[in-house]
Amino acid sequence: MSVLVVGSIALDDVKTPLAEQKALLGGSASYAAFAASFFGPVNLVGIVGRDFPQAHVDLLKSRGIDLAGLQIAEGKTFRWSGEYLWDLNTRETRSVALNVFETFRPELPEAYRSAPIILLANIAPDLQHRVLDQARQPRFVIADTMDLWINIAKERLLELLARVHMLILNDGEARQLTGETSLIRAGRKLRELGPRYVAVKKGEHGCLLFGDKGQFFSCPAYPLEDIHDPTGAGDTFAGGLAGFLAGRGGTEITFDDLRHAVVHGSALASFNVEAFSLDRLKSVTPEDLASRVAEFRRFVATD
Amino acid sequence: MSVLVVGSIALDDVKTPLAEQKALLGGSASYAAFAASFFGPVNLVGIVGRDFPQAHVDLLKSRGIDLAGLQIAEGKTFRWSGEYLWDLNTRETRSVALNVFETFRPELPEAYRSAPIILLANIAPDLQHRVLDQARQPRFVIADTMDLWINIAKERLLELLARVHMLILNDGEARQLTGETSLIRAGRKLRELGPRYVAVKKGEHGCLLFGDKGQFFSCPAYPLEDIHDPTGAGDTFAGGLAGFLAGRGGTEITFDDLRHAVVHGSALASFNVEAFSLDRLKSVTPEDLASRVAEFRRFVATD
Repeated sequence: MSVLVVGSIALDDVKTPLAEQKALLGGSASYAAFAASFFGPVNLVGIVGRDFPQAHVDLLKSRGIDLAGLQIAEGKTFRWSGEYLWDLNTRETRSVALNVFETFRPELPEAYRSAPIILLANIAPDLQHRVLDQARQPRFVIADTMDLWINIAKERLLELLARVHMLILNDGEARQLTGETSLIRAGRKLRELGPRYVAVKKGEHGCLLFGDKGQFFSCPAYPLEDIHDPTGAGDTFAGGLAGFLAGRGGTEITFDDLRHAVVHGSALASFNVEAFSLDRLKSVTPEDLASRVAEFRRFVATD
Repeated sequence: MSVLVVGSIALDDVKTPLAEQKALLGGSASYAAFAASFFGPVNLVGIVGRDFPQAHVDLLKSRGIDLAGLQIAEGKTFRWSGEYLWDLNTRETRSVALNVFETFRPELPEAYRSAPIILLANIAPDLQHRVLDQARQPRFVIADTMDLWINIAKERLLELLARVHMLILNDGEARQLTGETSLIRAGRKLRELGPRYVAVKKGEHGCLLFGDKGQFFSCPAYPLEDIHDPTGAGDTFAGGLAGFLAGRGGTEITFDDLRHAVVHGSALASFNVEAFSLDRLKSVTPEDLASRVAEFRRFVATD
């Protein structure tokens, strides 16, 4: 089963306390599609400018990612520049240039419209709606979001929640969107807004997964001594989760499937932060992933 | 197998955003001993003043806690007064009156000196040393501590680490004591200072347990919608953990035992924060505990 990923594709300038790199492949769709490609076919919808390096296109193609939905527009690719402070938990955006992304209107190639699993990676809720308008009865729709959309497009975001099966967001966003301090209350309240499942990401503290009838899963993070670049960790998590679900095949998605998907998404995210951009994920083999998942399970086993 | 608990016994005035209560039974040893009593015999060493209510003595006795080591001194019982801010994560100490605690010199009754498991609950490192000086080859010594001792008695604390098998402390304290931002690095570094095992408590995010040869366990917290009073959660965790280990009987303590102990300590701490003082723990039955542990395990299962 294939997964459709729609989101941003960017060239990132990233500065950490230890290093600085420019024009890295970034954006929510790049990370998410790459992570999803570990589990099966991926269809990508996004936009880049004429300056987008062929090497990045080749990298995505090398993973079997279908780029029929990639628009190459006149102008420059979306640029983001940010800096992480000493503990890598605080990020400051230095500049954003939307460039061709400003006029992005996602168009699903005919072959994508019946995608069973759709990941609406982090982009404006209006664009996420537009994707769903073109899709034919997807089996499972996952939406990611960010604080910006809660601030400037809350109504459209709330409308979107009624159309998706699962919402992924971080702890601060969950609190912001619900007005609840307790993440447990926030997660449950978000489910009442539409999505059957809600995943609340907590960075180094892992992730909380909420389902119906009190279903709940708390997943710690994989223990890392050093983080080199946190950019894209959440997108990698979401992409790995969506890809894992697609890779499971045609049966109905259960809470157990989602627990496994969260573990695999977390494992991929733990690789991702070990280097800039997709540099670490590029060299991860299926055996590396299986080995980290097995280690991960030992680290959280209570029996 | 019995567990020896040494620590503070206090009368607490606690204010939360919702309520305020005065002269509650508190102190590290009260919470820890009560939690340990779920698993077997407990010997308590502590000090109170003449004003200490008989009802509190009776409560501890009702749990089978041996009070031969409880000193009743002329003067007033240790008083602590604190307030929790709106999200209950921030605590402000309003006042502390050490009273009889200022002259506390722990004395182990002869029958306590061969205790196989010793929990040095949060008190000054000097007093923790004094307890170990009186003990005869304990099988497993656990020490809890707090930021105050890192600030004013760091040398004595470091000397203590070489004498204990396990250290329990919270995330901020682990960072403070090691100068490491990463809790994973901090936990491993603390092991190099002496203790074979280190548990780093993260409040609502659970606990990290470090052992030798890369042994590691990440335990999320039990999901609670509401927290009524966080006072004593860490002491309850430590006491439950120590009690569980004593209850396991005479075989050598393994990392697996500690994983189970962490789960039981966490479950008891999750009850504790549901009401002021020991009000919730008082009514918890062995069946309630078993049921919460089982639920807890389901919530974190990855298979």
